[in-house]
Amino acid sequence: MSGTRRRVALLATIVVGAAGAAGAVAAATSDAPGNSRAIKKLIDPKKPKNVILLVGDGMGDAEVTLAKYYGKGARGTLNMEKLPFTGSVTTWNLTPGPGPEYLPNYVPDSAPTGTAWSTGKKTIDARLSQGPSEEEAVPGSNEGYTTTFEIAKRRGMRVGNVTTSEYSDATPAAPSSHISQRRCQGPEDTRTSCPAESKGAGGLGSIVEQQIDHELDVNLGGGKARWEQTLDDGSGTVLDYAESKGFRVLDNAEDLAAVSSLRRGPILGLFNAGNLTTEYAPLIAAPTPGAGGPDVRCTDGNRPANEPSLPAMTAKAISLLERNNRKGFFLQVEGASIDKRDHASDVCGQIGETLAFDRAVGVALEYQEDNPETLVIVTADHAHTSQIVGAEADPPGFYATLQTVDGAPIRVSYGTGKTPPGQGHTGARIPVMAIGPQASNVLGARDQTDLFHTLIGRRG
Amino acid sequence: MSGTRRRVALLATIVVGAAGAAGAVAAATSDAPGNSRAIKKLIDPKKPKNVILLVGDGMGDAEVTLAKYYGKGARGTLNMEKLPFTGSVTTWNLTPGPGPEYLPNYVPDSAPTGTAWSTGKKTIDARLSQGPSEEEAVPGSNEGYTTTFEIAKRRGMRVGNVTTSEYSDATPAAPSSHISQRRCQGPEDTRTSCPAESKGAGGLGSIVEQQIDHELDVNLGGGKARWEQTLDDGSGTVLDYAESKGFRVLDNAEDLAAVSSLRRGPILGLFNAGNLTTEYAPLIAAPTPGAGGPDVRCTDGNRPANEPSLPAMTAKAISLLERNNRKGFFLQVEGASIDKRDHASDVCGQIGETLAFDRAVGVALEYQEDNPETLVIVTADHAHTSQIVGAEADPPGFYATLQTVDGAPIRVSYGTGKTPPGQGHTGARIPVMAIGPQASNVLGARDQTDLFHTLIGRRG
Repeated sequence: MSGTRRRVALLATIVVGAAGAAGAVAAATSDAPGNSRAIKKLIDPKKPKNVILLVGDGMGDAEVTLAKYYGKGARGTLNMEKLPFTGSVTTWNLTPGPGPEYLPNYVPDSAPTGTAWSTGKKTIDARLSQGPSEEEAVPGSNEGYTTTFEIAKRRGMRVGNVTTSEYSDATPAAPSSHISQRRCQGPEDTRTSCPAESKGAGGLGSIVEQQIDHELDVNLGGGKARWEQTLDDGSGTVLDYAESKGFRVLDNAEDLAAVSSLRRGPILGLFNAGNLTTEYAPLIAAPTPGAGGPDVRCTDGNRPANEPSLPAMTAKAISLLERNNRKGFFLQVEGASIDKRDHASDVCGQIGETLAFDRAVGVALEYQEDNPETLVIVTADHAHTSQIVGAEADPPGFYATLQTVDGAPIRVSYGTGKTPPGQGHTGARIPVMAIGPQASNVLGARDQTDLFHTLIGRRG
Repeated sequence: MSGTRRRVALLATIVVGAAGAAGAVAAATSDAPGNSRAIKKLIDPKKPKNVILLVGDGMGDAEVTLAKYYGKGARGTLNMEKLPFTGSVTTWNLTPGPGPEYLPNYVPDSAPTGTAWSTGKKTIDARLSQGPSEEEAVPGSNEGYTTTFEIAKRRGMRVGNVTTSEYSDATPAAPSSHISQRRCQGPEDTRTSCPAESKGAGGLGSIVEQQIDHELDVNLGGGKARWEQTLDDGSGTVLDYAESKGFRVLDNAEDLAAVSSLRRGPILGLFNAGNLTTEYAPLIAAPTPGAGGPDVRCTDGNRPANEPSLPAMTAKAISLLERNNRKGFFLQVEGASIDKRDHASDVCGQIGETLAFDRAVGVALEYQEDNPETLVIVTADHAHTSQIVGAEADPPGFYATLQTVDGAPIRVSYGTGKTPPGQGHTGARIPVMAIGPQASNVLGARDQTDLFHTLIGRRG
């Protein structure tokens, strides 16, 4: 108890040190306190009991800063800005070269990036927790691509997986399946696109089938339509298969709120046929003179009440995973539509999803405060298109102007593709932020594969 | 001695932990060592004896990553990636609002950003180490805008200022002058644009006059033409004024190399009439189908031999400042044309300047290794335009493709302005990296003004 209180006081010192500085008076000797002693005390070399990984898909530093300015203001603080240990990771992946060696591909999709932190290894675009070669894209050849979830399960930890996308999309699929094509989400998709990997052909099956076979304790997201696809043997749908394996299938926020334990089986919550609905109504950027305006604010309340929010799903997942649990848990949470709305040049969609993701970070931090044996890591998977440009800038692509909570205009440019839905990922290194045991392992400039080693608990 | 050796070993552990991870084999228990104990030992709460601040102008995470991939490869390591303490800072500044309050301006120019770390305070665009109001833009009203250089001088430290731009440009001017308009670089400029602040009108004078009056020990950069402007009293040029104050004026690399001490007076090296020449020949991005190509490498060797490189100027500045010096030194080094070439959509110019800046970081790190009482901070002043896009992307603005040292193609988009020289700054938070006493104060998400307090040495 007193240990927890002391930790909170230390954190407060650090946050005040940062946030209070903007207004501090310059003096010959600085009045701002240093954090050396406070940080030293926060460094904990023990292996964490619990791990919560929160991934903002496509959430590079531009996306973080945009959400901060819009929603919290220049002097405000996002929850993700409260984590004391910070670093950056590179996100390159592999692509076949002209010779036998693979070359780096500097702008990855979300399959190899999820694979990087889930397995500690690189692979090619679209591939999930499998090696890059043709030979590695066959059943039973996932040597060395053991995932965080598999390791956690082996250790007797509970495992949860939460996303705002289809539950079988790349980021939630990376630690819960091994498949050569991310599009092989349901059995019908797999019979078409990855036939050799279907269950009918003796493979591990589609992503959703593998997600059942992984026996994860808490599974929350969208993408129910994939689960309504027919199994290879024609015996029913994937939802039937899930129920036969003892999963409790839910499809609305109210039923999720009512779940109070995992005693009656693992939870499978699928709250939309496709991706979950975004928090903010869309505002799509446009060519000159751009969309929005200096007095325009985004419209909140776009998500229907039957779909749970990301912070609500995160809170429920934590409470279910931690209850009567001596062996700890591993939870991955994805804010998926930061990326999807960035692709669509949808500035409001993107901001609303980033702020919802940040509230999920707040839920994790609150739990961590009371349970300091928990490692919380917040990161992205790759950088993306949106850029904050001058309030009078006239960029060649699509842009929009909004009013921030400061009452000031902010202009956002989308300029990596010639049509709005064609905005693409970018290759800049991305932020990583952490608190808890071994959190200092994220310091410095690292590669995304390095996160895997911190997630599963390092030596020393 | 043994202390130094131990520190080097600790650093090696950390760097190997990071760089070696890409190839590490996934295992149920991570083989990668943690850095908790090593990092704990690197935290040093003492005030630093010496401070070296290296600023890559316009060097956001995209610019860092681009230079890394082009010059070092995906598995390579920049010098700036070796600093163990890392964080990010926001760079917003002020702009007059409709009422009496100033609003945030989310995309600053380099004058208020330099002011932020040099004084710990915010100001408006184009203003240097003065308050934002009209009243504050008059002589003798720089209350609270005391600079890092002024504090260091007051403490008896030696001070150096090095840049690849005109020596009177915004970043080197921020800690060495107080003026309402950054364009008031020479006395003629000032008589035109800031008449009330000219020496003739009883003000502090132009930036270059103030830089002499600051009595800095080492002053290296370009912009000699500003110093050839006539003084307000017509008695000669600013160079004459500098010589009358005992400065040794140099104009070529050979003479700089020959300087071995400050005994014969402070050094003023001005190696070009304007900005120094870039390391790489330009390659300007172009609309579809873009410039360059997948086999194109940049052309090095663009800088004439009479102009010293940034690492050479940095090495000379350190050696002059540290010699027979008990009270320590404060050195600011700017890689200025990362920004200038980004404005011009010049991908090769930008990369060459970033890599030269990184070699200057290497010089500082080498000194720090032998002199651990030195705090080294590496940062940028604001984010910028360039983005690494997919190798097949077709962005709406200007782009170019190059071949990296990995032998792989990299495509770079410039899309914040409709004409190449019109690319503008962007508003994302930017990286900060540090090593040495109080270096852990850069951890987390902070504001740029917070750096000031670390630069001048914090309490506790």
